[in-house]
Amino acid sequence: MKLDFEKLDGLIPAVIQDNSTMQILMLGFMNKESYEKTLKTGKVTFWSRKRKKLWQKGETSGNYLKVVNIKSDCDNDSLLILAEPKGPTCHKGTTSCFTKNLPK
Amino acid sequence: MKLDFEKLDGLIPAVIQDNSTMQILMLGFMNKESYEKTLKTGKVTFWSRKRKKLWQKGETSGNYLKVVNIKSDCDNDSLLILAEPKGPTCHKGTTSCFTKNLPK
Repeated sequence: MKLDFEKLDGLIPAVIQDNSTMQILMLGFMNKESYEKTLKTGKVTFWSRKRKKLWQKGETSGNYLKVVNIKSDCDNDSLLILAEPKGPTCHKGTTSCFTKNLPK
Repeated sequence: MKLDFEKLDGLIPAVIQDNSTMQILMLGFMNKESYEKTLKTGKVTFWSRKRKKLWQKGETSGNYLKVVNIKSDCDNDSLLILAEPKGPTCHKGTTSCFTKNLPK
């Protein structure tokens, strides 16, 4: 199966879910190179849209995301990655980046 | 708090998680208008990149996603929506769109 990197200028959104707790930890974007590095190293690696370079989550903080399983969706244009987080995932120190409740 | 729709040509990725089972059901994109319609109707509404129009999930199948809670991430550029699905979410008849295991 081939992932479709074309719809979003070479990027695919990747949702990271804690393999033990099922909590959603973060969402990042991958290009083909960062996806292949994720497969090769077993550590989640994104494409940083801000810094325009590969970004292995935890490369500076030590808070890596170890890949347990990777699933793609029916259109092959999104990824769900089950991972074991080392430490808090968010740079703000929380387990998950999704902490703010919006109005319904 | 203001969502940042600018990074991705007016779009934000929205992850849909089953509020009861914690299973990830699908990922779609929202523009400001679809986000506001989601808030107003209480049913998840995306922007269809293929059809270039608003797309209320379930509008043809009846398989709506009822909003329970909405969270944004630390950068305000991704959404996590906890929902109660009516019927299977995927157009292929499965509970989740994420069914394919990729090589690790």
